[in-house]
Amino acid sequence: MSLRASARGGIRLNKLGEDRLLREILRGVGTKTLSRGAAGDDCAVVKMRECSKLLVLKTDCVVERVHFAAGTNAFAVGWKAMMRPLSDFAATSALPEFALVTLVVPEQLQVAWVRELYRGLRRAANRFRVSIVGGETSSTRGPIAVSTSVAGFVEPDRAVSRCGGRAGDDLFVTGLLGCALKKKHLNFVPRIHESRWLTENFSIHAMLDLSDGLGTDLPRLARSSKVGFKIDTNKLPLARGATITDAVSEGEDYELLFAISPRDRRRLQQHWTKKFPNVPLTQIGLLKRKSRIEDRTLGGGYVHFQQSS
Amino acid sequence: MSLRASARGGIRLNKLGEDRLLREILRGVGTKTLSRGAAGDDCAVVKMRECSKLLVLKTDCVVERVHFAAGTNAFAVGWKAMMRPLSDFAATSALPEFALVTLVVPEQLQVAWVRELYRGLRRAANRFRVSIVGGETSSTRGPIAVSTSVAGFVEPDRAVSRCGGRAGDDLFVTGLLGCALKKKHLNFVPRIHESRWLTENFSIHAMLDLSDGLGTDLPRLARSSKVGFKIDTNKLPLARGATITDAVSEGEDYELLFAISPRDRRRLQQHWTKKFPNVPLTQIGLLKRKSRIEDRTLGGGYVHFQQSS
Repeated sequence: MSLRASARGGIRLNKLGEDRLLREILRGVGTKTLSRGAAGDDCAVVKMRECSKLLVLKTDCVVERVHFAAGTNAFAVGWKAMMRPLSDFAATSALPEFALVTLVVPEQLQVAWVRELYRGLRRAANRFRVSIVGGETSSTRGPIAVSTSVAGFVEPDRAVSRCGGRAGDDLFVTGLLGCALKKKHLNFVPRIHESRWLTENFSIHAMLDLSDGLGTDLPRLARSSKVGFKIDTNKLPLARGATITDAVSEGEDYELLFAISPRDRRRLQQHWTKKFPNVPLTQIGLLKRKSRIEDRTLGGGYVHFQQSS
Repeated sequence: MSLRASARGGIRLNKLGEDRLLREILRGVGTKTLSRGAAGDDCAVVKMRECSKLLVLKTDCVVERVHFAAGTNAFAVGWKAMMRPLSDFAATSALPEFALVTLVVPEQLQVAWVRELYRGLRRAANRFRVSIVGGETSSTRGPIAVSTSVAGFVEPDRAVSRCGGRAGDDLFVTGLLGCALKKKHLNFVPRIHESRWLTENFSIHAMLDLSDGLGTDLPRLARSSKVGFKIDTNKLPLARGATITDAVSEGEDYELLFAISPRDRRRLQQHWTKKFPNVPLTQIGLLKRKSRIEDRTLGGGYVHFQQSS
């Protein structure tokens, strides 16, 4: 069933008009968050938190037939469109606060589909107390695309990037890897709480969220940190039914990969288990000095994984 | 000539890979702006200006065959993609600072086209000292879409919205209206300097930028301000070759429409002419009490214009 054929006699977008659509979409946007004007105004003007924090910005998008199959239910598409950039906030250990949504959709799309999309967007935003403060819509002759931009804040001493990994650091991943394309990629919960807890209690040297797969994302972290890495693939925490290759190559896991001093290993593992008893935490390898043989990216995103030393 | 056929034997996007593309695109992003990490990191983390200001957020997009014709040169597409949200900053009288760009493009697109697009985006951003601090790319089977999100700041007493217009206010527009689709929509300069000067020197009650045409945008301002309006269409400042209907209905003017007390009229006109000798400023009508007969939006965005009293 294609998306365009999925609704039963609902109103089509081209009958509703952009103003009405935006008004309806932004119905939930309170004047509490918006400092001036109303949702649907030219810009969202929002009050900032205390100034000692850094501003954090991220944009991401989901495109039909790239990030979701035609026929995927609209709620799940909305959920994913919001959670993808929020997962980057987890990687940065930042707190998201405001979101803007740009919707590029065919005019023949049913309004009911868009409403359901926004229900997904809003439910996902509420989960992390994010306010959707603005939006824009455009028609297209092509597939549906939803672009979500998120603004938030982080304390300067808790902002984590991919760059700070050191030779000798332990490498940990949260959760389970592989087979995420079956279902998880449409209903995952970004590891924001876990990430905030980590930087509250530990010095996290480098971190990212696994969206393209360990085999692509780990070399990115290592390259940014100017170090090499070594992984014990037998240690990878596999999702049910997943092979090592799935865990390395598939992507869409949205789990955290981070580097931390081995001195913190025991304390981390002990406290993690108490704090997040349902979220596995696995040490999968370590960072090491860069070898002369560079890690090679092979075709199709697959990466030569056991980096030579 | 279609976009996909326009480049001569260049590298196609699917050969280059997202990492390399993002690295190349974000080459100009300095560590001056980014507080931590590097461009291409999960989030852009930026230092904030003084905290007494409000955070301003806007997202917008341009879509092939909606906002630009297939075959439009890529530099102009990039320029427009950046200037559209910046025009909303002008409407808010806010100063833009940081931009994020999401690029949704077919894999067969030539890399040369994307480079030229970014040259346009960067040139437009530089014009207002905006730093492009992040980006995301996705492939699509459909038309090109570029979504730009901008963050910036405004002093609380200078933030203007569509809501503050009062019955009796004069209505002014900057520049000339109509025929913008010939050329201007691809090379306009948002009225940020003019808008900042206005709020520095006057109390602007309500303002917006004319993107959908006076006939659509003025009723929006009036509705948001809960007032009616009266326009003298013979006073409309017409671009060369434009009719009154063009000026009312075409859109893409990106000029400012604002409401200001008639007590400020003379001082505004005198000082404007000295400050911006090359930018016409025209009083086109006034806001008045809302009549019982609502302004009616007719099909195709055309608006019953001489609102009955």
